[in-house]
Amino acid sequence: MSRRPDADVPGLVARARDGERRAVARLISLVEDESPALRDVAAALAPHTGGAHVVGVTGAPGVGKSTSVSALVRAWREAGLRVGVLAIDPSSPFSGGALLGDRVRMGDHATDDGVFIRSMAARGHLGGLAWSTPQAVRVLDAAGFDVVVVETVGVGQSEVEVAGLADSTVVLLAPGLGDGVQAAKAGILEVGDVYVVNKADRDGADQVARELRAMLALAQRPDDAWRPPVLRTTAQSGDGVPEVVAAIGDHRSWVGESGALTRRRARRARAEIEAVALATLRARWGGLGGSAGDLDALAAAVVAGELDPYTAADRLAGGA
Amino acid sequence: MSRRPDADVPGLVARARDGERRAVARLISLVEDESPALRDVAAALAPHTGGAHVVGVTGAPGVGKSTSVSALVRAWREAGLRVGVLAIDPSSPFSGGALLGDRVRMGDHATDDGVFIRSMAARGHLGGLAWSTPQAVRVLDAAGFDVVVVETVGVGQSEVEVAGLADSTVVLLAPGLGDGVQAAKAGILEVGDVYVVNKADRDGADQVARELRAMLALAQRPDDAWRPPVLRTTAQSGDGVPEVVAAIGDHRSWVGESGALTRRRARRARAEIEAVALATLRARWGGLGGSAGDLDALAAAVVAGELDPYTAADRLAGGA
Repeated sequence: MSRRPDADVPGLVARARDGERRAVARLISLVEDESPALRDVAAALAPHTGGAHVVGVTGAPGVGKSTSVSALVRAWREAGLRVGVLAIDPSSPFSGGALLGDRVRMGDHATDDGVFIRSMAARGHLGGLAWSTPQAVRVLDAAGFDVVVVETVGVGQSEVEVAGLADSTVVLLAPGLGDGVQAAKAGILEVGDVYVVNKADRDGADQVARELRAMLALAQRPDDAWRPPVLRTTAQSGDGVPEVVAAIGDHRSWVGESGALTRRRARRARAEIEAVALATLRARWGGLGGSAGDLDALAAAVVAGELDPYTAADRLAGGA
Repeated sequence: MSRRPDADVPGLVARARDGERRAVARLISLVEDESPALRDVAAALAPHTGGAHVVGVTGAPGVGKSTSVSALVRAWREAGLRVGVLAIDPSSPFSGGALLGDRVRMGDHATDDGVFIRSMAARGHLGGLAWSTPQAVRVLDAAGFDVVVVETVGVGQSEVEVAGLADSTVVLLAPGLGDGVQAAKAGILEVGDVYVVNKADRDGADQVARELRAMLALAQRPDDAWRPPVLRTTAQSGDGVPEVVAAIGDHRSWVGESGALTRRRARRARAEIEAVALATLRARWGGLGGSAGDLDALAAAVVAGELDPYTAADRLAGGA
């Protein structure tokens, strides 16, 4: 009868690094549930991070994301790499319900200890990918996975967020979804390092690829910048998948050699630190589950017209 | 040749309170552009705020929002009230382009000094309604408008945000948009104080109203809570509009008498203060246009695995 089952964080990290799947799952749950052990977990992981190649995969519903990710995982496994997958489910504010989906999705990877797949809620109450996903990425990174895939549905801001998280971002499209013309609108032209037109066996795939190439060609890029390739796959059969794996590898080499990787990771770390710091401050101010403090009194003064929100904010932030 | 045309903030506020439309527009531009005079503007407005009834109007594209708002404005004007409208355009990251739209929309209100209509970008670089819209509401409130309408397209989180801003929230629906069944998904059931099925002359309006009533009836509400009515309009012809105006007025009376208004406004002020404080801190940390400071060094340590993001965040927030 252990009174504090979470207490052995170093032990969990050691077992996760030894490849024990349950330890990995437990660590992700700890960060996802914002366990009190969260800070211990983060501290124990830190020295072991930085080795994984973090690959974002995004695309609108219907482009074949799950099938594509599964095909990529298979290819990486054949190359001897261990692969972790975080599938972000934007429709769920909870994470528990995703377990069945994970089991279904594991499919042919279910008995392979070199693959770990986990669904996560997009929005915890602290808001967005900015919070728990980067910590889950750190768990998989520290556990020694060579590739960590973060899979998101491309809706609203999430493409941009996943691009902020990843070392390399793969944007999936497919014919028949109106993606061609809408690509520019959706903001995907800025975020992709590798573009993949999936369902290439269907009518319209050529046109989607052509339109996409034309739009990418219009973008102003420095001479020494990475030129995102536009590839075609039929993920269901595996056609074209090796080329995508190669392109992702090329991009990883390029960001490593050009110095872009360090810049991307520093930007990611800044966003992460900031998100944690802001959440900490909000809790301290009583805005989010913390004890109501100065903020209530300041808000009452603003409602009464005795104070303006800027002066109130300065008092709040000044005393943070 | 005035070197600092922004300097006479008290004068601008006085002229805005005298009903001078250009002064109102100038003040909104100052807050929207995050002018250095922003804090002076906020301080000068504060003593004059609290009088306006802030009404949020939201609905999916195609429900007839502009026509409905125009019909409401006409009805309020006939009752002798001055009305300001902030139309939030989520598709535009900029505000400049909205000017032509405003002129077109002014239509029959163009020569009426008792109406002020302004389009605003939904997302400034500081993010969301949370930032500039509440300040623009304060400008119109302080300028003596009796009703301030905040009109938003119901996509993603914006219904929830507008409900946070408003004293009373009107949710518009229409037949033929698949709104009926999707209402629950979109989260609109929690935010509306008054529901309006517009285009009531079209097939399916009855069904939308019926489904909506059935879903609202399922919601758990305390006995003394406000029961949101479901009304029907044909905004184009004005049918049903007086009933909507009356329901909005009833809701204003109810929130005033029940104490809910003070709670709503305090919640709004807390969110506002927090948003400003967080933006101030982010700028101070160098995250958003501020001078790069501690954050860069902390991020580098996190990338190197020498520090975890929580410890880094504590150092940042502790020293804020």
